[in-house]
Amino acid sequence: MSEWSLIYGDFNAQEEPLREALCTLGNGYFATRGAAPEATADDIHYPGTYIAGCFNRLKTHLAGETIENECMVNMPNWLPLTFRIENGDWFDLDSVDILDFHQELNLHQGILSRTIHFDDGQGRRTIMHQERLVSMEQPHLAALKTVLRAENWSGTLEVCSALDGRVTNSGVARYREFNNRHLSPLKMQSFDDNILLLEMETNQSHIRVAQAAITLFSRQGESLPCPGEYVCESDYVAHYFKTGIETGTPLAIEKIAVIYTSRDRAISEPAGDARQAIQETTGFDHIADRHRLRWKQLWDQFALNLSTHSEVKDGNIKATLRLHIMQLLQTTSPHILDLDVSVPARGLHGEAYRGHIFWDELFVFPFFNLRIPEITRSLLQYRYRRLDAARRSAQAEGYKGAMFPWQSGSNGREESQTIHLNPRSGNWIPDNSRLQRHISAAVAFNVWHYVEVTDDCEFLSSYGAEMLLEIARFWSSIASYNEEKGRYEILGVMGPDEYHDAYPDASEAGIDNNAYTNVMAAWVLLRALELRTRMSSISYTTICERLQLTNEDFNRWADISRKMFVPFHDDGIISQFEAYDELQEFDWEGYRNRYGDIHRLDRILEKEDDTPNRYKVSKQADVLMLFYLFTAEELRDLFTHLGYAFEHDTIPRNIDYYMARTSHGSTLSQVVNSWVLARSDRPGAWPLFCQALSSDVDDIQGGTTQEGIHTGAMAGTVDIIQRCFTGIETRKNQLWVNPALPPELRSLTFRINYRAQMLDFHLTPLSIRISADASSEHPIRIGLKQAIHELEPGQSREFAL
Amino acid sequence: MSEWSLIYGDFNAQEEPLREALCTLGNGYFATRGAAPEATADDIHYPGTYIAGCFNRLKTHLAGETIENECMVNMPNWLPLTFRIENGDWFDLDSVDILDFHQELNLHQGILSRTIHFDDGQGRRTIMHQERLVSMEQPHLAALKTVLRAENWSGTLEVCSALDGRVTNSGVARYREFNNRHLSPLKMQSFDDNILLLEMETNQSHIRVAQAAITLFSRQGESLPCPGEYVCESDYVAHYFKTGIETGTPLAIEKIAVIYTSRDRAISEPAGDARQAIQETTGFDHIADRHRLRWKQLWDQFALNLSTHSEVKDGNIKATLRLHIMQLLQTTSPHILDLDVSVPARGLHGEAYRGHIFWDELFVFPFFNLRIPEITRSLLQYRYRRLDAARRSAQAEGYKGAMFPWQSGSNGREESQTIHLNPRSGNWIPDNSRLQRHISAAVAFNVWHYVEVTDDCEFLSSYGAEMLLEIARFWSSIASYNEEKGRYEILGVMGPDEYHDAYPDASEAGIDNNAYTNVMAAWVLLRALELRTRMSSISYTTICERLQLTNEDFNRWADISRKMFVPFHDDGIISQFEAYDELQEFDWEGYRNRYGDIHRLDRILEKEDDTPNRYKVSKQADVLMLFYLFTAEELRDLFTHLGYAFEHDTIPRNIDYYMARTSHGSTLSQVVNSWVLARSDRPGAWPLFCQALSSDVDDIQGGTTQEGIHTGAMAGTVDIIQRCFTGIETRKNQLWVNPALPPELRSLTFRINYRAQMLDFHLTPLSIRISADASSEHPIRIGLKQAIHELEPGQSREFAL
Repeated sequence: MSEWSLIYGDFNAQEEPLREALCTLGNGYFATRGAAPEATADDIHYPGTYIAGCFNRLKTHLAGETIENECMVNMPNWLPLTFRIENGDWFDLDSVDILDFHQELNLHQGILSRTIHFDDGQGRRTIMHQERLVSMEQPHLAALKTVLRAENWSGTLEVCSALDGRVTNSGVARYREFNNRHLSPLKMQSFDDNILLLEMETNQSHIRVAQAAITLFSRQGESLPCPGEYVCESDYVAHYFKTGIETGTPLAIEKIAVIYTSRDRAISEPAGDARQAIQETTGFDHIADRHRLRWKQLWDQFALNLSTHSEVKDGNIKATLRLHIMQLLQTTSPHILDLDVSVPARGLHGEAYRGHIFWDELFVFPFFNLRIPEITRSLLQYRYRRLDAARRSAQAEGYKGAMFPWQSGSNGREESQTIHLNPRSGNWIPDNSRLQRHISAAVAFNVWHYVEVTDDCEFLSSYGAEMLLEIARFWSSIASYNEEKGRYEILGVMGPDEYHDAYPDASEAGIDNNAYTNVMAAWVLLRALELRTRMSSISYTTICERLQLTNEDFNRWADISRKMFVPFHDDGIISQFEAYDELQEFDWEGYRNRYGDIHRLDRILEKEDDTPNRYKVSKQADVLMLFYLFTAEELRDLFTHLGYAFEHDTIPRNIDYYMARTSHGSTLSQVVNSWVLARSDRPGAWPLFCQALSSDVDDIQGGTTQEGIHTGAMAGTVDIIQRCFTGIETRKNQLWVNPALPPELRSLTFRINYRAQMLDFHLTPLSIRISADASSEHPIRIGLKQAIHELEPGQSREFAL
Repeated sequence: MSEWSLIYGDFNAQEEPLREALCTLGNGYFATRGAAPEATADDIHYPGTYIAGCFNRLKTHLAGETIENECMVNMPNWLPLTFRIENGDWFDLDSVDILDFHQELNLHQGILSRTIHFDDGQGRRTIMHQERLVSMEQPHLAALKTVLRAENWSGTLEVCSALDGRVTNSGVARYREFNNRHLSPLKMQSFDDNILLLEMETNQSHIRVAQAAITLFSRQGESLPCPGEYVCESDYVAHYFKTGIETGTPLAIEKIAVIYTSRDRAISEPAGDARQAIQETTGFDHIADRHRLRWKQLWDQFALNLSTHSEVKDGNIKATLRLHIMQLLQTTSPHILDLDVSVPARGLHGEAYRGHIFWDELFVFPFFNLRIPEITRSLLQYRYRRLDAARRSAQAEGYKGAMFPWQSGSNGREESQTIHLNPRSGNWIPDNSRLQRHISAAVAFNVWHYVEVTDDCEFLSSYGAEMLLEIARFWSSIASYNEEKGRYEILGVMGPDEYHDAYPDASEAGIDNNAYTNVMAAWVLLRALELRTRMSSISYTTICERLQLTNEDFNRWADISRKMFVPFHDDGIISQFEAYDELQEFDWEGYRNRYGDIHRLDRILEKEDDTPNRYKVSKQADVLMLFYLFTAEELRDLFTHLGYAFEHDTIPRNIDYYMARTSHGSTLSQVVNSWVLARSDRPGAWPLFCQALSSDVDDIQGGTTQEGIHTGAMAGTVDIIQRCFTGIETRKNQLWVNPALPPELRSLTFRINYRAQMLDFHLTPLSIRISADASSEHPIRIGLKQAIHELEPGQSREFAL
């Protein structure tokens, strides 16, 4: 791994799935799997979220029950291109003799290139060089350039270029028994002897998807007319081309393809627009130039440069951080601004979780907030459009306001499974994860933080306030007053730690008073009450009238925000939930010895007819989430408001307590732990950060990366650098900084966008320099060590630390 | 007409088409024709723009040619409800004896009500009261409540409630020979004995449209179970209900209907979402309450109150202004923010111009800019999404940059007809209106003015700058340097005045150096050059790199902006175009005597084998557009920059000259003339303003209102009050006011939104008071009579005039 690329020097089938996931190319509009095992076949992956209505309802019969699942739909393959020499076999990477293999994902350019030197078994040696991109400039377009050079032969070359609709959704082994074909053919055509058109429709949502592709031949820059023979099957179209190849003279084959769907805007109908676009397309080199420029500009905006002390090998760290940024930009680039999409937990890279939208936004949005906040705005609007569905969910459960679903499907309905498979035991077990009501607090948190960074009043009055108020109303309605305690409670939920979905031996699902949930609920109510002073009186009155909110509501909210119950034990340990302290301690060492990898302790225990519900074990951070989302100062204020003590050592004591009891069954857990440690234990934070950083590049969960990258962990690790080590906070109309570089870091340079102004940061352990763009209109107020400093437009100031 | 309503006290078939157009109900998401001639049938009109891809390509053979036209598609009728008494005839307004008829459109509530007292011919007298709305709160929903009271009989009542897909597009007589059926049925269902579902698909664009409706009966507040008998035809579904009715006891029938299309966001698929929505719907009264509240809030935001001197009858003026505001909000309410739509020239109210998008935005956007600027932003994004199509149009004609089409179709392609019908002569004549290149200047002007009002930097860097620069590039490429003149020229175009599409006896279409076009081109180039200082350097560099703009481009733009040719004649008259002065004077009096109404002189002359091209006649303002768009000060600067004299009397002399030579064949012309006169001749402006105001309510063009309201004239007249009489300008980061109330006005009160702050205005002939909302963050700088005043948040200041 060099600083700007991912390189694979040899062809090794074992590494393929991981390589495939990490070499994915995309542009936000869609993603393609750039490196399928067959060197010339391509598996185009279409984002489930983009075609949010495109999820298909799958039916399978299992134990007499009908399970309905939603799945993101793989789009037809659009770059398949293969060839054969002198009527031989069609090229197959597994059957030729590979003399040399080099594959490289250029992170700066967003281009995947591959050079294969092979012998076809007949002694004919050929060098194939391929470059592939999904355009970051032209969102509908992908392009592949293949250059073949015959080393020691000349003769006939046949090329097959296709659009292949015979795709299935089979990227995740345990989903394969579900119906996995989701597309029906509508239209297949050939034009001008080198243009193909394939239009298909998703089965359930009836979204039309039209692809068109052109195949162009050239030799030494001279275009080579080569009419193709058209072949059409029921959901597959191809052109077969025949041409000559001469020893040493490279033959270039360019395939340009476009995709349009009936959900696109500014189209007449997808097939017509696809055909027009492909007929007007320019060649690969021009497309690649424009694509590279756009990536360069994105890197200008998303730059994150660090240097470490000489003893740290920082090449991998830099490249991995860049890989993370690149993958995030492929999932949610500026191209999503006009789409109705969000960020699936596994990006657009794999089918795990079927493209559903979870709370991972909480880890992803802060990264975008400080770079291109319009991306966050657009993703929050995705939630806003599903506010009615959230109201419906609340009502169905007897609550008021808006309750967002744990797994959000195309139209915002709850899509969490009710049973799930333990691959270890083969058992299907009840799944109560929909009780994770805290998702609604995450949505509210994201709204508030977006507004803190941007001061986007229009967003607040058009969308944000309505979401915040309706979520507050939900928390108010789910909270009940316990006379005995003199406090409000939230019963029968699940916290972020999915190992605890019920009390041991309880017949009902859910645990009571999850500390994280309760504190978040109180925080949401406080923010909702703060809206009155945050918005113009006209906007505030308008929204309250529409939602029929009265002083009675506000008084109850204020009361709950002061009297929400938070459980404690062991004199200062925040109990993950009420009666957590009565659970048994777990035999960590015994199980580690017995099983090695105990990330998924739930599956191990279920196989043993046991359950994590009985133990003080966590799959992932739960209480610690509070220290991740809030600073010590904010938490002290919040707990004081609730009438609880928050001592100086509350945070470190709780960190110690829970870190010792977590199996890290989620990649997010590593991010949270590294983050919270960075505040209390700097030397301890770095190794944890490096571990979180390796979630995907080392596939630390052993196989989950090929089912899709972990967007939360990818964004979270970048955000540790961006916000945690720098102490950047956007609070109360001020930008706060409080750097705490770990000893390994020598310097850190990056650029943020705060309130529509560009600020360049340069940090060393001893100083921080912040420079404002000259075109700013207003000075920026920066809080550092209790003092407020003004930074004038165009000014650069350095502060000693 | 009262101040808040449109009332029709008697049933008069002659007035129906006009009434139908003006009583249209809508909410931006769609519009329904609220008052079709049959009192119980409904003709739902679906906005061509909303279903922009939904325009159908129609073919008809005429003189051996294939004419392709695009048409907005009428959606299935969704509120049809009729009844019959005791097995008699189905209710028909034309065959019953009408004892009393009262119809009222309540502008404040957005509810159309109708009371009909009738005798069925058998002596049975019944009073029917209907209320109808298209919800401004729930964008997918419409509702109809019918209350029947039998006055002197009791017996059986049969009710038929349907969804009717057998609709045609036949609202415009001269289009009727085109194919006018654009929908094919997909799904027809009945649920629960009272819910209907009808799903259809548009023929060309394959947009699915699903409607669901529920019919509910009640007597004195008690719900009355009444199972319907289901009838299903090929594209029509209905329920037949049978119930009893007793003398004097009112029977209420509520029909609630929803519509979803496959272009909607946050849906799974339209039929499923429609069914779910209708099953969860509340009753009419609750729907109406929420609807009324939203309208009340809109009126708070769009208030425009004036009082006149006692001698002026101002009831009609106030109500007409409110009618205009209401119609505009029905076409482009906040519900459009998330849609890909623009404002069709004739609203969503009629089929004229087939829903295509013209330059009328230029008259509509200023109205929204100062009230809900997000609406303008969304409408500008509609253009931005079609920027590639505009680039394609430019390229097809050999130009660079972006050339927006005169008539913009669904995907932004040019849809201007190439021949059109003169109904007077029956001749089809060549139509060169696509040569109106000035449309691109209008798009640029709208971008700039939106940014001036809002200071929306994010819009500018994400969308606005790209549009402005590409339009500038177009003007630069269409301009050619004339060595002889030492100036740049723009040849072969048409100005806004459509009477001149060629020189007399010329074989080529187009005229040279249209003054309006040339001046606008120079203005656009200046604004594009100004971007460098207006944007952050990062954003500016990024966009210039992407568009590959170099100093060479900028130097040429600067040169053109100084040397664009503007023709003059008669010592200070700006020639409408070059050699305009050589045309013949027209015999206005003779033609007026001969024909009476000479609005459409083009049709009269063509019938006589003559052409307006030979005369100094204008269909509508052309040179005068300059005085409409710019203040005298701006024009002086612009002409001085171009090296032309701009004398003190240039404006009044040109107004006199061109007003004497205009036939007002467009309703926009009245708006422009009233506006320009208000600056130079206040007493003269008022009657012209009143005339412009009556464009639709009096259908002054004799029949065009029923083909759709005139959105440009409606917005323009409100804007005359809002900006022209007040002299409000948003220029160079300042809010300027320069009131010039006409003598008829005693006071004027309204509220504007300037840079996200609410400002209340109160004007009298002697003073102006401006009050700022307390929640503002920054003071507002107000320019009045050469002085700048600061208005602090919460402050109210009064200035003498």
